[in-house]
Amino acid sequence: MTQAIDQTATDFMEDQDVEDYALNKRVVAGILYALEAADRATLLELMDPLHPADIADLMEQINPFDRRRLVQLYGAEFDGEILSELDEGLREEVMNILRPDVLAEAVRELESDDIVDLVEDLDEPAQEAILDQLEDADRVAVEQALSYPENTAGRLMQRETVCAPEHWSVGEAIDFLRNAEELPEQFYHMILVDPRMKPVGNITLGKLMSSRRTLPLQSIVEEVFQVIPVTQDEEDVAYAFNQYHLISAPVVDADERLVGVITIDDAMAVLDEEHEEDILRLAGVSDEASLSDTILDAAKGRATWLFVNLLTAILASGVINLFADTVDQMVALAVLMPIVASMGGNAGTQTMTVTVRALATKDLTAQNAWRVIRRELSVGALNGALFGFIMALVAGLWFGVPMLAVVIGVAMLLTQIAAALGGILIPMALDRANIDPALASGPFVTTVTDVVGFFLFLGLAARVLL
Amino acid sequence: MTQAIDQTATDFMEDQDVEDYALNKRVVAGILYALEAADRATLLELMDPLHPADIADLMEQINPFDRRRLVQLYGAEFDGEILSELDEGLREEVMNILRPDVLAEAVRELESDDIVDLVEDLDEPAQEAILDQLEDADRVAVEQALSYPENTAGRLMQRETVCAPEHWSVGEAIDFLRNAEELPEQFYHMILVDPRMKPVGNITLGKLMSSRRTLPLQSIVEEVFQVIPVTQDEEDVAYAFNQYHLISAPVVDADERLVGVITIDDAMAVLDEEHEEDILRLAGVSDEASLSDTILDAAKGRATWLFVNLLTAILASGVINLFADTVDQMVALAVLMPIVASMGGNAGTQTMTVTVRALATKDLTAQNAWRVIRRELSVGALNGALFGFIMALVAGLWFGVPMLAVVIGVAMLLTQIAAALGGILIPMALDRANIDPALASGPFVTTVTDVVGFFLFLGLAARVLL
Repeated sequence: MTQAIDQTATDFMEDQDVEDYALNKRVVAGILYALEAADRATLLELMDPLHPADIADLMEQINPFDRRRLVQLYGAEFDGEILSELDEGLREEVMNILRPDVLAEAVRELESDDIVDLVEDLDEPAQEAILDQLEDADRVAVEQALSYPENTAGRLMQRETVCAPEHWSVGEAIDFLRNAEELPEQFYHMILVDPRMKPVGNITLGKLMSSRRTLPLQSIVEEVFQVIPVTQDEEDVAYAFNQYHLISAPVVDADERLVGVITIDDAMAVLDEEHEEDILRLAGVSDEASLSDTILDAAKGRATWLFVNLLTAILASGVINLFADTVDQMVALAVLMPIVASMGGNAGTQTMTVTVRALATKDLTAQNAWRVIRRELSVGALNGALFGFIMALVAGLWFGVPMLAVVIGVAMLLTQIAAALGGILIPMALDRANIDPALASGPFVTTVTDVVGFFLFLGLAARVLL
Repeated sequence: MTQAIDQTATDFMEDQDVEDYALNKRVVAGILYALEAADRATLLELMDPLHPADIADLMEQINPFDRRRLVQLYGAEFDGEILSELDEGLREEVMNILRPDVLAEAVRELESDDIVDLVEDLDEPAQEAILDQLEDADRVAVEQALSYPENTAGRLMQRETVCAPEHWSVGEAIDFLRNAEELPEQFYHMILVDPRMKPVGNITLGKLMSSRRTLPLQSIVEEVFQVIPVTQDEEDVAYAFNQYHLISAPVVDADERLVGVITIDDAMAVLDEEHEEDILRLAGVSDEASLSDTILDAAKGRATWLFVNLLTAILASGVINLFADTVDQMVALAVLMPIVASMGGNAGTQTMTVTVRALATKDLTAQNAWRVIRRELSVGALNGALFGFIMALVAGLWFGVPMLAVVIGVAMLLTQIAAALGGILIPMALDRANIDPALASGPFVTTVTDVVGFFLFLGLAARVLL
């Protein structure tokens, strides 16, 4: 198995320019051809060297019909890790195609934290059906993990830990490891614990290996040591791993007793998900969206924001309607007004995005809020003045009405300042109210800029021009 | 030192509700007070337990005046890692404040890959000044790393590796590690190499520890094994770590010889940066932007996109101007037209964001492109029909002109389909042309939706209504 993979890693590099690790086009074509011919031997040969993550990607890329054929033809070879790697939206579909005995076997191969991830979104009966297939110890482990709230450290951690009493020496620890019956598949630290099982330090295996046998473990603990409470939000866990460059960290219960360990690959997955969520939310796409969603699901996921946007757009139209007489008297206003709103909207989105990011990375705090607000207002004023000036020139030349040039210049300057203010204050207010600022900032910010933009431009025009 | 940090980790949790790991408000206030009083003893006492990453955050949050006082008062205690953790925009400022001897000492403490990260963006003389302070071995290592292109594996890797000949047994490997004079600070795998120094497998230290001494290393290599070419783009490196859950991976030169190793914490940092870049680029903010940029830099960083947006907004205005007579005859058109453009712009942004993400995660490939395009068009048509219908009702009731209702309904439907088409084809085309789709999609997509929206709505109105 291993050798086969080594071999392919090399083939892969040679065949494919190494530009990316993604699925080889030739392999995908070969697999689809094997499906068409129902040629199981060729399919297995082509799939064998693929990593479960790549097989999952393949299944996401092909259409539902081919997916069903693939799962059926692949049969008993189906690896549990493929399910773990699969897009959440597709998991149930695939699990329903799998023969019950294949599914049971696939799940049994997984580590308990991966099983938790797999079953936590299933409904009760489907969840039960899977848990029933597990050995008792695994079942208890999974059920215990499910007893922690969703999106917390308790769901993320693995329960198997490697720990040592704090008074041990290097020699004792090494002997313990060499004689251990069973150790976790992957571990990077020995966790030092006090007699109450409270973690007090981490020892890297490399340091342990290279230290004298007589040294006390206490003397070689890592400098940076973070303990994760079992109920901590997974986003805060990911933040800690990223901020302090952790590789693994012990998880403790309310009594500060060691209950599990979280490793960096889990934290990296959370960080990645969180980013995806932020980027989609900022664009008004619901979190669930993935390329394998059905058309109806995708349309629904986007309709919410479009609806909110429709309301704010109608509100902005209402402002224009207030000045219908003004527009009626000077059609140039109708031609120019979208420019004021569009520039305001863009400036607002820029400030909003910077603010949402700064809140997520904890770079924006009570400490520097005022300074950042002043800064954003200055940036808005600077760019507002610049583009107001440019647009005044353009409008003046285009329509030959000097006062129209003044009106649009001033309106743009003021709208961009308002956009900066909205772009920073709205996300900050949402964050303080414990609403994800990425989720709801967009509609509010564009409402502010549209309403302010139309009102200022048309209002000024009504006063000055007519 | 270690004990102090353990202690504080606990204090921190108890004091602070554990909600976040960010800097304690009380600590920040205390530090600012100590700066005011020029009380070095208190400052050191408060700073001692902080992780360099937190000190860097603190320095980013306070104003430039306090920052200067902090660096000066902190003096010789200044840790090189603080520089590594500091926002790139602030590094030069802080390095210029540091006393030359403190700076030299701070840099000498760092690992060679961190020094590379620190100096790669400095200009020649500043770079030289720092390199001159290094010991010869470090200097050579840094210079060699700098000889690789920017943003490649060669800049990211550490050169110290732990490897073993492929024919060794577990016992031989353990003895080698126990007797090694010097091992890297952090390592998680022993890399198996063939006689030509080509990596052929990874052994986790945990597995090594728990295996019988007589077993050949070959029999306990990890199943998943990825080799990184030294010239590979760092984004592809991060993708491989995320996709295959790697902890560390050997880096090879053009002859496939081992030249270094990349660990997951470096890959995680790249992933994080890349996400930040994507999210900011999608909002039209230049990459360099951080809260510590000066007002002028921030304004410049955003002006480019605002300028592009101004041009596209003027183009859209030109379309309105084509229909100035039509608008002149029916002011309701001026009131309603921003709704058509705004809804189109939002639908386009949604599709564009989903597409940019799918391209970044390699979920959208030649394999499924047609299916995804059809899907997006269907989603656009579905939501276009829904919101076109709603808006037709609203416009009909508002202005009492039935044909106006039909015109806006049809215009919205068609604009949203065009938005979906633009939202997917434009990023795909940019990606194919090797331009980051996140960077340039926005202006093109909104131009399409604005121009199409105004043209369809006013054009239809001119034909049907007047």
